[in-house]
Amino acid sequence: MEINRQWLLAKRPSGMVGPENFKYAETPVPVPGIGEVLVKNLFLSFDPTQRGWMVDQPGYLPPVNIGEPMRAGSVGQVVESLHAEFSVGDLVQTTGCWQDYVVVAPGQGPMGLSKLPPGVSPEMMLSVLGITGLTAYFGLLDLGQPRPGETVLISGAAGATGSVVGQIAKLKGCRVVGIAGGSEKCAWLQKEAGFDAVIDYKNENVRAQIAHHCPDKWDVFFDNVGGTILEDALEHLNLRSRVVLCGGIAGYNATEPLPGPSNLMKLVTNRSRMEGFIILDYLPRAAEAVKDIMAWVASGELKFQIDLQEGFEHIPATLQRLYTGKNFGKQLLKIADPVSV
Amino acid sequence: MEINRQWLLAKRPSGMVGPENFKYAETPVPVPGIGEVLVKNLFLSFDPTQRGWMVDQPGYLPPVNIGEPMRAGSVGQVVESLHAEFSVGDLVQTTGCWQDYVVVAPGQGPMGLSKLPPGVSPEMMLSVLGITGLTAYFGLLDLGQPRPGETVLISGAAGATGSVVGQIAKLKGCRVVGIAGGSEKCAWLQKEAGFDAVIDYKNENVRAQIAHHCPDKWDVFFDNVGGTILEDALEHLNLRSRVVLCGGIAGYNATEPLPGPSNLMKLVTNRSRMEGFIILDYLPRAAEAVKDIMAWVASGELKFQIDLQEGFEHIPATLQRLYTGKNFGKQLLKIADPVSV
Repeated sequence: MEINRQWLLAKRPSGMVGPENFKYAETPVPVPGIGEVLVKNLFLSFDPTQRGWMVDQPGYLPPVNIGEPMRAGSVGQVVESLHAEFSVGDLVQTTGCWQDYVVVAPGQGPMGLSKLPPGVSPEMMLSVLGITGLTAYFGLLDLGQPRPGETVLISGAAGATGSVVGQIAKLKGCRVVGIAGGSEKCAWLQKEAGFDAVIDYKNENVRAQIAHHCPDKWDVFFDNVGGTILEDALEHLNLRSRVVLCGGIAGYNATEPLPGPSNLMKLVTNRSRMEGFIILDYLPRAAEAVKDIMAWVASGELKFQIDLQEGFEHIPATLQRLYTGKNFGKQLLKIADPVSV
Repeated sequence: MEINRQWLLAKRPSGMVGPENFKYAETPVPVPGIGEVLVKNLFLSFDPTQRGWMVDQPGYLPPVNIGEPMRAGSVGQVVESLHAEFSVGDLVQTTGCWQDYVVVAPGQGPMGLSKLPPGVSPEMMLSVLGITGLTAYFGLLDLGQPRPGETVLISGAAGATGSVVGQIAKLKGCRVVGIAGGSEKCAWLQKEAGFDAVIDYKNENVRAQIAHHCPDKWDVFFDNVGGTILEDALEHLNLRSRVVLCGGIAGYNATEPLPGPSNLMKLVTNRSRMEGFIILDYLPRAAEAVKDIMAWVASGELKFQIDLQEGFEHIPATLQRLYTGKNFGKQLLKIADPVSV
């Protein structure tokens, strides 16, 4: 009899999340009911926001309970279907969690259940066409509202979201400056992703370099990091600029809350705005983004980078890669290959 | 020969501003040129933002130079006119600065030069119909966008701006909660200004009391204070709420920059916005506000409180009242009475 391997949330993290927060378990493969399908997870998505789901505080999603499989987005394959619209062999996107098998129905869970469009690989579905790609698209265009000729500054620029933000901003006629960690990431951003300038926060003075690379200041700051980088950025904002608050990875694993920027009054003197958003609100509009992004990828105008790990046993350690800056591009882990039906 | 008494900026402040930052001087009364008028200041306006004009840093207005009269809004009387639209005896609003006399022309200086509407007293012109009233009106309505039934939270609620914000919010059908210092101010807000609830930050736990008095959380936070009060407020924001960043008086006289709120990620999880503004941008639309505010004052629906000091020698000490919370309502100082012509 086949088993369902799982990584359960064992202990809520204080400080840096690591393998010690999870516990391996084996359970029977679940059985779908009427209207449900049984999905075998093939690829798991790793996203900075997962750290927020592990703490027992109200958020935009309920916390994962102790003893439950860790919540995660996934692409899998239907292995049993009691729903008319899904067939065995279909590749689907869902919230599969850290386990081999999940029973799910359309509309269930934060991501629901949807078939991959023809020609879209699991890697593409979980990156540039997935949550991180949509986050980049709607965050930049809806909240950032970049106009041609404006300067767009991006923190976490080599991440799955940041790198897409920068390339879309370029396509919209903006000057694009990215902040990333390490020369390899910075080189990729400038040479492959076409950023106009890059700041290596591990080796450069971020505040001084923002001034240097944004001679006309910035109009949009897409912030994935928070902390001192947000404070540095606020020193160089333009009149009527927009801060798109996407994430604050600098603080996710802090033991004590990180102080916020001491210069928020810059928003006043510069008549500027800071706004947060959650991509789940935009899922009903996903088709708009997918259409544009698929065209840009097909034409070679939008490049993306996948950091692919393998092996069920490496799931907990792979999550930590996001918070130590080890991942280069969208962090995925492959559990299994699809099978032909 | 008559002299022009002045208080000049003598030394830029570090920490709390006080009389030691200014120097008394006497100069000849200035002479107006073609198109200019000579105004004798009667009432000076004191505004928290003046502290920002004293430091040598870029802001929304250039810093006051050392040796110049301190910049201040004023109401005065025309004593000599070389401009067709102004006559001797006219009461006018302008940026008169800390001195007896100023030469000015329409369109000059941040406030220009404008005649008081008929029936409007200098005190009213410099409070509810002046910069602080307009700040309340446009900040609340344009940025805060309160809807009937929503909860509006206000810091610095007994101040010249905050008290008007709360009363306009009530007129718009909102539940209004104010944060102010001391029982006298709190009592006035509840009994006279009609606030639904008041939190005395000097004697109560602000974070706990916001939770208590905003059982449905808040939808608009009009912030004049910043610092820990902003952080406390962010713990209780609603989905899609708006922070109107008006000022940050808690930090204006700090020797070291105050840390910002550690919980800015609440803006993300709650899809919320924080936005700053400068009232000078709204002066072209002032008539909209003045029309509404005059009607509300006339009908008794909008009350305002003036803290009137007297005496040229007390000008520097009066500024400090703003930052120590001594002022109760709009801080003004009378230099002279108008004369009949």
